[in-house]
Amino acid sequence: MNLRYAVPTKFTLVAPLLLVFSLGFSNTALAQDHPKLLLTKAGVLDIRRHLGQVPLFDQSVAEAKRFVDDEIAQGIDVPKPKDFSGGYTHEKHKRNYAVAQQAGALFQILEDDKYAQFVRAMLFEYESMYATLPLHPKERSYSRGKLFWQCLNDANWLLHMALAYDAIYDWLSPEDREQLNRNLFRPFADFLSLGNPQFFNRIHNHSTWATAAVGMIGLVMNDDVLIKRALFGIDDQLPASNVKDDDGGFLRVEGQKAGFLANLEEPFSPDGYFTEGPYYQRYAMYPFLVFALALENAMPTLGVFQYKDDVLLKAVSTLMNLTDTDGEFFAMNDAQKGMSYFTRSLILAVDVAYYYGDKDPSLLSIAEQQGGVLLDESGLAVAKAIAHGEAKPFVKTSRNYSDGSNGNRGGVAVMRHEVGDLAVVFKYTAHGLSHGHFDKLSYSMFFGGTEVIQDYGLARFVNIGAKGGGNYLPENASWAKQTIAHNTLIVDQSSHFDGQYEIGSLHHSELYALDFSNTDRQFVSAIERNAYPGVLFHRTLALIKDPALSDAILIDVLNVRSDTEHRYDLPTHYLGQIISFGFENEASSQLVTLGHDSGYQHLFVEGHGKPSAGSSYFTWLNGGRFFSQTFLTGDDDLLIFARLGANDPDFNLRRDPALIQRREGSAGTIFASVVEPHGHYSPVSELAVNASRSVQDISLVVNTPAYTALSIKLREGGERILVIANTEPSNQIEHKIDVNGVAYRWRGPFFLVGEPLMPGKAR
Amino acid sequence: MNLRYAVPTKFTLVAPLLLVFSLGFSNTALAQDHPKLLLTKAGVLDIRRHLGQVPLFDQSVAEAKRFVDDEIAQGIDVPKPKDFSGGYTHEKHKRNYAVAQQAGALFQILEDDKYAQFVRAMLFEYESMYATLPLHPKERSYSRGKLFWQCLNDANWLLHMALAYDAIYDWLSPEDREQLNRNLFRPFADFLSLGNPQFFNRIHNHSTWATAAVGMIGLVMNDDVLIKRALFGIDDQLPASNVKDDDGGFLRVEGQKAGFLANLEEPFSPDGYFTEGPYYQRYAMYPFLVFALALENAMPTLGVFQYKDDVLLKAVSTLMNLTDTDGEFFAMNDAQKGMSYFTRSLILAVDVAYYYGDKDPSLLSIAEQQGGVLLDESGLAVAKAIAHGEAKPFVKTSRNYSDGSNGNRGGVAVMRHEVGDLAVVFKYTAHGLSHGHFDKLSYSMFFGGTEVIQDYGLARFVNIGAKGGGNYLPENASWAKQTIAHNTLIVDQSSHFDGQYEIGSLHHSELYALDFSNTDRQFVSAIERNAYPGVLFHRTLALIKDPALSDAILIDVLNVRSDTEHRYDLPTHYLGQIISFGFENEASSQLVTLGHDSGYQHLFVEGHGKPSAGSSYFTWLNGGRFFSQTFLTGDDDLLIFARLGANDPDFNLRRDPALIQRREGSAGTIFASVVEPHGHYSPVSELAVNASRSVQDISLVVNTPAYTALSIKLREGGERILVIANTEPSNQIEHKIDVNGVAYRWRGPFFLVGEPLMPGKAR
Repeated sequence: MNLRYAVPTKFTLVAPLLLVFSLGFSNTALAQDHPKLLLTKAGVLDIRRHLGQVPLFDQSVAEAKRFVDDEIAQGIDVPKPKDFSGGYTHEKHKRNYAVAQQAGALFQILEDDKYAQFVRAMLFEYESMYATLPLHPKERSYSRGKLFWQCLNDANWLLHMALAYDAIYDWLSPEDREQLNRNLFRPFADFLSLGNPQFFNRIHNHSTWATAAVGMIGLVMNDDVLIKRALFGIDDQLPASNVKDDDGGFLRVEGQKAGFLANLEEPFSPDGYFTEGPYYQRYAMYPFLVFALALENAMPTLGVFQYKDDVLLKAVSTLMNLTDTDGEFFAMNDAQKGMSYFTRSLILAVDVAYYYGDKDPSLLSIAEQQGGVLLDESGLAVAKAIAHGEAKPFVKTSRNYSDGSNGNRGGVAVMRHEVGDLAVVFKYTAHGLSHGHFDKLSYSMFFGGTEVIQDYGLARFVNIGAKGGGNYLPENASWAKQTIAHNTLIVDQSSHFDGQYEIGSLHHSELYALDFSNTDRQFVSAIERNAYPGVLFHRTLALIKDPALSDAILIDVLNVRSDTEHRYDLPTHYLGQIISFGFENEASSQLVTLGHDSGYQHLFVEGHGKPSAGSSYFTWLNGGRFFSQTFLTGDDDLLIFARLGANDPDFNLRRDPALIQRREGSAGTIFASVVEPHGHYSPVSELAVNASRSVQDISLVVNTPAYTALSIKLREGGERILVIANTEPSNQIEHKIDVNGVAYRWRGPFFLVGEPLMPGKAR
Repeated sequence: MNLRYAVPTKFTLVAPLLLVFSLGFSNTALAQDHPKLLLTKAGVLDIRRHLGQVPLFDQSVAEAKRFVDDEIAQGIDVPKPKDFSGGYTHEKHKRNYAVAQQAGALFQILEDDKYAQFVRAMLFEYESMYATLPLHPKERSYSRGKLFWQCLNDANWLLHMALAYDAIYDWLSPEDREQLNRNLFRPFADFLSLGNPQFFNRIHNHSTWATAAVGMIGLVMNDDVLIKRALFGIDDQLPASNVKDDDGGFLRVEGQKAGFLANLEEPFSPDGYFTEGPYYQRYAMYPFLVFALALENAMPTLGVFQYKDDVLLKAVSTLMNLTDTDGEFFAMNDAQKGMSYFTRSLILAVDVAYYYGDKDPSLLSIAEQQGGVLLDESGLAVAKAIAHGEAKPFVKTSRNYSDGSNGNRGGVAVMRHEVGDLAVVFKYTAHGLSHGHFDKLSYSMFFGGTEVIQDYGLARFVNIGAKGGGNYLPENASWAKQTIAHNTLIVDQSSHFDGQYEIGSLHHSELYALDFSNTDRQFVSAIERNAYPGVLFHRTLALIKDPALSDAILIDVLNVRSDTEHRYDLPTHYLGQIISFGFENEASSQLVTLGHDSGYQHLFVEGHGKPSAGSSYFTWLNGGRFFSQTFLTGDDDLLIFARLGANDPDFNLRRDPALIQRREGSAGTIFASVVEPHGHYSPVSELAVNASRSVQDISLVVNTPAYTALSIKLREGGERILVIANTEPSNQIEHKIDVNGVAYRWRGPFFLVGEPLMPGKAR
């Protein structure tokens, strides 16, 4: 098995780094060159000069001051480690490093010794505890920490404390520094690296935190051993391959590099997409950016931000774009709903991307909404630009993001239309490491800030102790990761790759064609060949804004090819309340589950109906908007109303609904549907506007290996036909087919027939 | 059966009215005295003088102008009546009267003839249609209209068109007036009254609309026959008693008066509470106020706003108070969630209450949020006061509202605490006419704008045609009205009064005692003697803010007295996701219903557990806040996790949860619990604060016929004891009991023991 991604040809960062190391660092910690991580001597002088003149910066200083002064008033507590996340000792140690970091910054900016005293006192409390501190008593993690139940949190502590330490380093006596370095920081860094190679030496966000933390304390201590270890990993203590972590991810794969630079290389695609998805990208960005910023300040000649064609800055932009109208991240893979770019850790990302990037004024509007800036030069620059009125709206557009370190392992396409701020997220990525889900060619849909066809996200209540210690719940594996939890094809009630991570990790879907050149006619199409042996599925999504309709509609054509018969299930995880549907529903008076495994055991069957052949539909209401899905239906299709929540004694799952279209005993087949927002309702005005769908019915008018054509008839009259060239995606090729006796010619993989979109183009 | 409320001693309005009529109106319509309903000649002059000087008024004029100009540009359409609510013809006729009314006002204010022309043209379209217009083709209503499927909507039309007609009356030629009066308005008014006595002659919001509409067109036409008919009803065409309407309400009861004045007399209590509840009060207020305003303008000597001690103005204040933080009405009886005092029809209510009341500046802040004012003198006054900066916040306080026209048929108590904007709504009213629910002594709880223990409200999607024509759904009777849908006691799985409206309408609960004098210790207690023969239940709710706790808590003691054994169910209709619970849950892998009727047929049993005797709890998360309920549990109690949605093939019900405490085979018994909000969670910060409950356990420390004492032990240490004197509510009586060997003496029905709330009071 070789999961290693190809090594890029221009590994630009290594050469200057080796040069730096060849010049040699002193092994004794030099004072008088701090701060040098986020803050610099010059930066601090500039900040002090501007105090009282830049509102958002002053406000951020004031907020930090309130926070820190309040903590100083309460006194320092460094409790004996005991709890999981959500428990007192866990939260207290988290709070300690947060307040220490802020206190350090305030010391530099306000020149008030009390902040340095506070940081010093806290560090010595930790110093006196650390020498004899055993492993954390909770034994759940594959790499138990000392202050926390997992090394990951210890790495968080070290990274933030490095910032605090950096701020007071020159102010401390040489004896203090010596004592802290020897008894606290060097052992702490060694524990996270040499003591836990299975944690430190991976390609994983855990290792990004670990290497950044060790690298940053190394920079503070001018300890080139730690810096080298951080950048390049540990040579001789690699974790065994094919061993898994708590989340089921491999600790490492054969032949894989380690260290911060390897972590920077692997998970980001050239488009700045992070393979685990935006929720984890948000988490991973912080150590990437904070250590990059420290390297930029401490070793400016490295040009870390220019690495891999500005990949870190691109990653920030990509992350900001993978959000709905409210700035909440699309829930791909393991992702907690509601996380947004207003989270504190992304203040740094936005400020850094602005300052070290091309001063994109649209980032300023996000910074404004974040309501605070980083207490460093980049934050000052952002606050100044905002004060000068330079902020521009952050406009999100349709984009395609490749996955894989070389951009050749599938991707994510986001199609947007400005009417209703509609967004469709189409996922044809690689597996996404241990946080990946088995959901090849799935999609989700947002209308403004409202998710109307959902990706379930993760099954976890992060940091809520009463829910499994705040950690992943069993239902994450049994439901959230399974294919049936997503809006994509399930064959024979088994998840993609039979739910096997080892196999899923080998594969990715392939982009077939994409055209976002016309906002009113956007197309993306991808193929999955590996999820089920002997079954290929090819899905095309088209986002069409027809002048005859109030809203943009989504056309979905899923072309399944197989030589053998299967049971196919295609769920729509709609959110909202059902208003009407176009078939008889046999409601269940006793609820049984839809299956016994692969996630089906969590679904109750609320009812089912046999639609008449042709097409059928259902309409639902969500957030004051009506939505309808019109399905192409076969003779023996079943439409199943399902409800989540079976086999969930602890109420770990939401009681969300799904409508599953089931087709039995087909070999090759076509699923198709049109999803349309159409109208609105307000309980205050009690006015229902445009409550009925615009689509009358849909039908397949061409179905050959080479071409698939779907006809959409509108209630107000008129017909539109979407033609897909199934085998030839090139824009150069000319196609010709007959539809309903009319011959059409066109170039390219997608063709839309029908007034008023394509006047005069036919024949 | 005699449901007639006692006649008030001072029926002040009748005498001057009779005087007016004795002076005699001309039967020919006088011109040159219009407008006189909402607008007056003097008022219009004043408005014109202020144009361009009062921002909110100018803005309201501009908005009306945009709306009307847009409609004028589209042209007039008066379609042949065909649809239910939500359908085109229904919505178009609604829109027509709305735009005509606004056009009339604009004609008066802006003196632009095009608006008068528009109203005239539309009225003549209706005139030419009306002579031959049959009954509406939809046959569902007990009183079918002509333009709409029910007379109620026709009455709406007439009321608004009377305003439009009033505005252009003097501008029209005598021939036009004659033609409209003869062919359209008089027949329209006769149809709604003489033609539909079963609709016109009731005590019901339908008849309020009907009489107001007929009275207003009578005022415009100076037609004293119509005015008299509106005010006093039809003598000789009373509907038969004991016949019911579509909603199951009686058309009339023996000996009952009719007409607008009787409708004004009966449904409002002296506190301004409307017996059907705030959702219908919101609907009913409009015709009450608009006709009252017209009477005030046309017959100012009547003093209609002073009637029954200013009951109409009080009713506005009461209505504004029966809302959560977001201004949404508490969902008592039939009520659609989300309706708020920002609905357009309440702009009039707020402006009138301000102008004709005591110029309460807190109403101005609501008017500001409504974003518009009435285009009359009251609206001008409100807009002026806002422009002068006179608006004050509308502060909602704990209040008790009596029910019944004399205030002696139970009531509603609202307890509020400013921490978290907590509100508890305790319902001990009369039945509430045909929109009442079988829910004696039920409560609901709000935290800020979030309902955390819910009243389900109605089962209806108002004006959404696809849901049963937008009308009441079968599940309204089978679920929403049933007792199990509410947070109150169900005996032997049968609703209060066996679900019989005829019996329920005879009774009301009784207030036992109430004390809101200390915001941190609020008590209300009421008794229900009639819901179940042989069972009395006495419920006490206490809202306590203890300095040891972050939030106010609700203590609920439900004392059930009976000589025979029963099955008791007490549901908590919590909203949110369960975080944890203190007992073993036997989750059901197949879901069956909890029962076969009385609403139980709509509940699936998701699981159940037997708590150990003493106390148990569950915690849930809603809107980023944690809530816990700690129950007093008996030896054989069952805690049932229920989920709504069984026997609901059309998905007319929400899939909401409930936790039901079941106690079998008890005669007299005590249910008690503490509900506490405690802490918060944000998916953006991922911080969980105070996620565990503050209450450790609760226990019954005294239980005699005379006294009940509940001990509450806190997790942080400390005990509080609530003592209730069960039989003697007077504040004068001194009580003395022994609790845990300590003797306490106090006066009054409620006594709270325990530091730090009552230091030094014991012994």
